[in-house]
Amino acid sequence: MKTLIVHAHPEPTSLNGSLTSLAVSTLEGAGHEVRVSDLHAMNWKAVVGAEDYGPHASTPLDVVRDSGRAFDAGTLTADVLAEQEKLLWADTVIFQFPLWWYAMPAILKGWFDRVFTYRFAYGVGEHNATQYGERFGEGTLAGRRALLSVTTGGPEAHYAARGINGPIDDLLFPIQHGILYYPGLEVLPPFVVFGADRMPREDYPDVAKAWEQRLRTLATTEPIPFRRQNFGDYEIPSLALKEGLEPLGRSGFGLHVRSA
Amino acid sequence: MKTLIVHAHPEPTSLNGSLTSLAVSTLEGAGHEVRVSDLHAMNWKAVVGAEDYGPHASTPLDVVRDSGRAFDAGTLTADVLAEQEKLLWADTVIFQFPLWWYAMPAILKGWFDRVFTYRFAYGVGEHNATQYGERFGEGTLAGRRALLSVTTGGPEAHYAARGINGPIDDLLFPIQHGILYYPGLEVLPPFVVFGADRMPREDYPDVAKAWEQRLRTLATTEPIPFRRQNFGDYEIPSLALKEGLEPLGRSGFGLHVRSA
Repeated sequence: MKTLIVHAHPEPTSLNGSLTSLAVSTLEGAGHEVRVSDLHAMNWKAVVGAEDYGPHASTPLDVVRDSGRAFDAGTLTADVLAEQEKLLWADTVIFQFPLWWYAMPAILKGWFDRVFTYRFAYGVGEHNATQYGERFGEGTLAGRRALLSVTTGGPEAHYAARGINGPIDDLLFPIQHGILYYPGLEVLPPFVVFGADRMPREDYPDVAKAWEQRLRTLATTEPIPFRRQNFGDYEIPSLALKEGLEPLGRSGFGLHVRSA
Repeated sequence: MKTLIVHAHPEPTSLNGSLTSLAVSTLEGAGHEVRVSDLHAMNWKAVVGAEDYGPHASTPLDVVRDSGRAFDAGTLTADVLAEQEKLLWADTVIFQFPLWWYAMPAILKGWFDRVFTYRFAYGVGEHNATQYGERFGEGTLAGRRALLSVTTGGPEAHYAARGINGPIDDLLFPIQHGILYYPGLEVLPPFVVFGADRMPREDYPDVAKAWEQRLRTLATTEPIPFRRQNFGDYEIPSLALKEGLEPLGRSGFGLHVRSA
């Protein structure tokens, strides 16, 4: 197994730092290859700009088309090319980050904004009567697996079905479905440590044990059964879920996960 | 009216740039005061780090507590203090940005990560039997209004109730509820321009007209009726929505909006 860990926390000795270290030692100890993109240590540039597209930056700047032309020409910046190469090398990608304001930290969002360029992660495949590009289950990263490992400040109850923050699965849906499944990654159920800000030190061994268990079963864990876009569940090109697939009146992100 | 516009797009002549320019001219033309934080023009630092907290950065770094201590001592960096001052000056805050990967661009997320510090935007108010801090309807920014003005690449159908991207209201919920309503801002229904990447130039006048109409009615538009945290709708401290307030079995973000 070849695992890329994308790590986004400013403090190496944090809980997030410990979970990444444990992932490296556990996976390497099991004979797997591991590479880590530690975004703070790399001083990762988070902000998209014309300088990302070199000779292909047009005036006015067109982020979609310019990034696609630079990708096709191989003239994206070295930092972005290196991350795309790591993604293509890996069969498994772990994202380790704290949930800040109900979303990923800016440095990680900037990794996606810059690495997931047009023609690499979107704008892939033809549009015709039976497919709307290769996305949501197909695409450049198809055949690979992804896993979010997330810490939250608030306790689990606040992220429950009726909790004030909204269900954790819904908060993570735009990442798991909209970002990871979009270019073809199969997404494993997330590993979430709730209440991390007030977690007593003596709770860490149990968290570590649970994380090791998830790491040891990466290859055999069933992914979240998101519905594939081009295989009959959606009208094309409206991409509305077809009638009859879920009870009428149901709505929300859960529609896009096949029922058991 | 005093309006702060937080603008996050790298190309001044983009649709986002045009919408911000139109907002400035429309609001100033109506006699209001307007300030703009153009994050790319300001070269906004998007990434949280120890350097943000000066003498209050501890070793190891503790983002929550260090940011709160620096806030209390008035020693946050000048760029962050300036944005907090603008928020306190404004009675209305508009956020203008493109939806990239179903979320805000990194530069804007980094504005929230750095400006919405502990003790300013969270960690405000006491915890006791009847309140869980001042948040979700109360807090530092209570009495002010916020509005998202967002462009999307995909067409509206993809963001409909049964569309593959998920409903636009659910995609924006973590921002509107989790980030803006949390420190007390009342959030107006968003202004969304769908299909922006392929919008013909001749469609712009209609978009501009609709945007001007929203700008002229900012003061009289009803905010989204999110449920206030400390006024009887939630159990404390679990913050579970009380039984009986919505049909059992309903779940998802919509629970946290009062029915008409």
